[in-house]
This record gives sequence, C-alpha cells and structure tokens, in this order.
Amino acid sequence: MDTLISHEALRAYMERVFEKEGFGREDARVIADVLMQADLFGIESHGAQRMMYYHQNIASGSVDTAAKIETVRETPVSALLDAHFAMGQLAGIRAMNMAIDKAKKTGVGMVCVRNSSHYGIAGYYPLMAAREGLCAFSMTNTGPIMVPTFGREMMLGTNPIAFCMPADPYPFWFDAATTVVTLGKVEVHAKREKAMPEGWTIDGEGEISTDAGKMNASILSGGKGGILPLGGAGETNGGHKGYGLAIMVEALTGVLAQGLVSPQMQGAHGDHTCHFFLAFDPAMFGDPDEIRAGMSRYLQMLRESEKLPGCTRIYTPGEKAFEAQARRIDEGIPVEEKTLMELRKIADALGVEAI
Amino acid sequence: MDTLISHEALRAYMERVFEKEGFGREDARVIADVLMQADLFGIESHGAQRMMYYHQNIASGSVDTAAKIETVRETPVSALLDAHFAMGQLAGIRAMNMAIDKAKKTGVGMVCVRNSSHYGIAGYYPLMAAREGLCAFSMTNTGPIMVPTFGREMMLGTNPIAFCMPADPYPFWFDAATTVVTLGKVEVHAKREKAMPEGWTIDGEGEISTDAGKMNASILSGGKGGILPLGGAGETNGGHKGYGLAIMVEALTGVLAQGLVSPQMQGAHGDHTCHFFLAFDPAMFGDPDEIRAGMSRYLQMLRESEKLPGCTRIYTPGEKAFEAQARRIDEGIPVEEKTLMELRKIADALGVEAI
Repeated sequence: MDTLISHEALRAYMERVFEKEGFGREDARVIADVLMQADLFGIESHGAQRMMYYHQNIASGSVDTAAKIETVRETPVSALLDAHFAMGQLAGIRAMNMAIDKAKKTGVGMVCVRNSSHYGIAGYYPLMAAREGLCAFSMTNTGPIMVPTFGREMMLGTNPIAFCMPADPYPFWFDAATTVVTLGKVEVHAKREKAMPEGWTIDGEGEISTDAGKMNASILSGGKGGILPLGGAGETNGGHKGYGLAIMVEALTGVLAQGLVSPQMQGAHGDHTCHFFLAFDPAMFGDPDEIRAGMSRYLQMLRESEKLPGCTRIYTPGEKAFEAQARRIDEGIPVEEKTLMELRKIADALGVEAI
Repeated sequence: MDTLISHEALRAYMERVFEKEGFGREDARVIADVLMQADLFGIESHGAQRMMYYHQNIASGSVDTAAKIETVRETPVSALLDAHFAMGQLAGIRAMNMAIDKAKKTGVGMVCVRNSSHYGIAGYYPLMAAREGLCAFSMTNTGPIMVPTFGREMMLGTNPIAFCMPADPYPFWFDAATTVVTLGKVEVHAKREKAMPEGWTIDGEGEISTDAGKMNASILSGGKGGILPLGGAGETNGGHKGYGLAIMVEALTGVLAQGLVSPQMQGAHGDHTCHFFLAFDPAMFGDPDEIRAGMSRYLQMLRESEKLPGCTRIYTPGEKAFEAQARRIDEGIPVEEKTLMELRKIADALGVEAI
C-alpha cells in the first residue's frame, strides 16, 4: 500500500532530516532537492526510498557531513575535485556548477570528482545546465554489480550516462544505466517474490537467472554472477556494447579522476565513487534558439512517427519524467509502506518531526 | 571464397583509385587510410567492401571530389564545419585534427560537421587523438535504419558512439552502433540466406523477424519496420536506452550542426550526414602517464577476471581489432570474391591497375 504525501511535506521532511544529520541549511536544501527530483520524476528508487541508506552512511562515517570539497586542479575549461567523502549530491552540484560557469565563459567545462559518494540520479546535474541553456553530460561509477561479457565477477557498476539538451516543451533528458536494469529493479522483484524477465541477470554458472531473490542476495553479498550489460549475455545482441559503454564510464570517472574503479569499491551501491561532468554552450555552433527549436522539432517527429500495432505512444527521453512530475505535484508522491516506516524511524532516531 | 591480399597491395590499389576519382595525392592517401584501418581491424563492412559504394556516390555527384570544407564558426575550444558534400573521411580528419589542436592548446576541442557524407568507421578519428596522448569521442548520424521504441518507421541511423583513451598494450578503443547490429550484419545474413538471431529486427507488424532477406530488402527500400535499438524491442530489456543513446547522437550531430537528422536523409547509408568530435587532454586532470597506467591496469583487471564456464577469454574493447591488425599485416587481408570483382570493375571503369 502506498501513501500519497504532498511534495511540500516530503521535501520539508527531507530538509529537516538533513539539517539534523549535520548539514548546513543550504546544503540540506540541495541534497533534498536531488532526492525530491527523483521522486517527482517517478524514479522512486532514488528518492525517499534512499533516505535510510544515506542515514546509515552518515551514521557509519562512510559519508562525512563536515567534508570540505577540494579543488585539486583547475584550468579555464576543467577542474578535478576531491570530495573527501562528502555527500555525492554536494560534490555533484559543486562540480556541475563549475562546469556551467566554465561553459558560460569559455564554451566548455569538464569537471571530474573523486572520493565522492552516491550522488542520486545522474540526470539531475545535466538538467541544471539545460535550465541555463547549455547541453551537459553526467556519469558516475558505482559499486560493482555488472559482469563483463563472458565474465562472472562483478567488475563494473551501474555506470549511468545522463545527457540533457534544451528543447520544448521539455528538455531532452536521458539518464540510463549501462546495465540492462538497475539493481533497484532486481530488488523490487525480490521484495514482491516475482520472477524477473529473461535477460537481466546471469548466475555464477553462466545461466540466465530469473530468480530475483537469489540474484539480489548474491549481488548484495558479492557472489558470482550479476547484472548483465545493456544488450544482454554474450555478443549476439550487443552485450559487448553495453559492457564497452560501462568501461567508458569507468574511464571517464574512476580512471580520469584517479580514484577507485568499481571493483575496488565495497558493496553494491559503492562508496568512494567518482563522477564526470561536461557542460557546453550550443551557441558556439549557431543561434541557440534555432538549435533548441531544431531539437524540439526532431523530438516531435519521433513522437508523431507511426506506432507499432497495439502501441499508442512513442516517448522521447524525459517525457515520462516530466509528465510524472506534473501529476505528482498535483496529486502527491506515492510512498511505499516500508519506506514510510523507515522515514519515521529516521525521524525518531534524530528527534525531528516525522511525516 | 576469400582471397588474401597484402595490406600494401590493397592500400596502393585504393590510393590509385581515389587519385583517379579526382582527389589530390594526400587526400587519396588519407581516404584510403580510413578504409584500410577498417580492413586491418577486421571490420570488413567498412573497408574494401565499401569501394563500390564510394565509387557510385562520386559518380552520381552525391559526393563532391572538389568540395572545399568551410569553417563556419570557430572559438578556441570549438568549430562548426560545413563539408559541402566532401568525402566524409576528409571532413572527419579535418575536424578531428582541429579538435586535437584545440585540445593541445586549451585542453578541449569540440567540432561539429554538417553536409558531410559516410565517413567510414567512427573509431578511426578518436584513435588519431589517442596517438597524441588525448582522449576523444566521435559520433555520426546516418541514413535511417532504426525504429524508435514502440515505433515502426525508421527514424534513426546506426548512430555509432566511438571513444578512445590511451592505454597499453593497446588504447581502449570503443566503436559501437546504438542499434543491436549494423545493417552490414543483416546484409551478410541475407547474402548467405541465413536466419538472423532473434532480436535484431522488427517488421512493420511489430513481430520480431529473423528473415534477413525480407528485412534487408525492406530496410533498403525504406519499408516499415527496421533494426532495433540496442536493448531490443520494447522497454523490458532496455531497448529505450539504445533508442535514447541514438537520439543523443542525433542531437550532437544533425541538430547541433544544424544539418539533416536521419529521417531527412535518402537511403539507408545516408548522405548529408553530420558528425561530432570531442578531444580532450587528460593532463588537465593529472599526470597523463599515471592516468594511462591506471587505464591499462583496469583493463587488465577486466581481462583477468573470472570467466564463465566454457569461456576462455574476456575481451576489452579494441583488443580484437588490434589482434586482427597484427595478423592481417602478416598474413594479408581476406577479400570476398564479390568484393574482389567489384574492385576489378572499378579499376576497369577508371583505367587504373587492378588488384
């Protein structure tokens, strides 16, 4: 059973929790904003549902609420930050703001971050840039959950690629793990004791597994097998492409920032993650309004193209998220019973007003 | 039956053909080099096999051998080129060299090209940058062959993403279409009258088709249905991710360069294509030798990780290509009978020495 909670109430709850956890008012506000954006966009796995995870990371010290994010290197078009185990959201926002500033001044800004932590939805950050009329990428490595093509050890993270470009009525907003699915989807099937579709996970013997309970437990405990790269097992349907994209993300995050790569991290969600941000100004290439109009026209062509029999809509990336946001602002955000209990437990532990 | 031809003989043949087609000696040399790189890497679809295609494009005037590539806009970190229907290889090399120069001076170079033509393997260009110690991307749109998720009209191209980063013993070299497979693989199955694996193409009725002959003819004639995005049909196994990546490539090529997007092009291979190039200097983020060593170490970890039962190797992107190159330099390049006949036909038509 889900409970509908107004976005204002959920946001206010998150802000008071993060303040009580030890963050300043503004930091608490922006961390909550990243989580709220996920819940508004209908990506529940990265919203309120993650509060307990962050609470535990702060309690265990794996996230340092007092961390000072350090600029290690800087040029007019780039920066390398060391987050010193700050909340990933604070590192991400700092880094993307630097990339945006540089893109406004020089045309391009590229910022890498090491020793960060889980930064929420990758897509939050390029959206910041799109609001300023810029195009942007964001990528992150994570704890290991993906097996290489032909492999049975988890050597790569979820390793999402997010990209955003201004368009109307919504920006083009793409945010996708380079795995077939995120661990969150395996977890949801495990909780509901439902079999997974074929092609999401492979076990240590090389058999495609649909047993969500078994695979979820195995992944969380670091067992053999794991989630397959986008494209699936082997090379027949392009699994090596998803695997290659995931390595590319490791290259641009862990390797370029000289931090940890996924298999060096502890746990499926990972700590000590590294991020990559790139913002650039489309005005370098032409009238930004015309480029924006061109993007909007192309997205419209896609949506209006012929549907398969039985299909009523063709979506473009971001559409579902912005529609969910409009609905959830009106109707409230559905919060699962278990998550609601967790939110109350956190409030109790911290002595702040519950929800 | 394949005939083994030494790489020197094949290269010399290509150079004399392109000179006779009307290109200057240096231009003929670099166009041949892009095609030879494909044949050396074992990507036959983009090597000598494409000579007839280029020959016909030049004959029909869709490629202009006398085109002057124009710099439309330029900043210290960017440029927009109009290729005026030059050979894509000449546009690509010009653009990537500009990106490399800018990256050496400022740290980053981003170059878009419009009104170009088929530029060969996308991966050729980032490899140029990696030889100079830089990291780089290359992307291109192409004629329409991919259907959107839930759609039955071909609205997107092969739309590859190529990325290269210095490493040892080989650079990390990734070059992948955002479709499940390239049109070339469908063509090969059609020629051999072999059924395709499940999940490559969908017909106009929304049925997964394994009939290579039917689907190849349908795609070439612009019929309904087409090749599926990486991740396959629907959203269950992430087909919307491949579709989203392909739109991202359109955004960075056709839209950003203010040229044509895939569905506006004629034919499956497409003319008037647009390209995107991004080179950057890893030295902005740290000691480039250490970053290169870190990349090499991570790739080695992947290759040495545990294999699935029955699998003897885990590959990293580029490994197969560089191994093929070493073998083909020694043993020669296998050229199909049909391709060999085409090469002789071109030589006859132009009055140059055949192979």
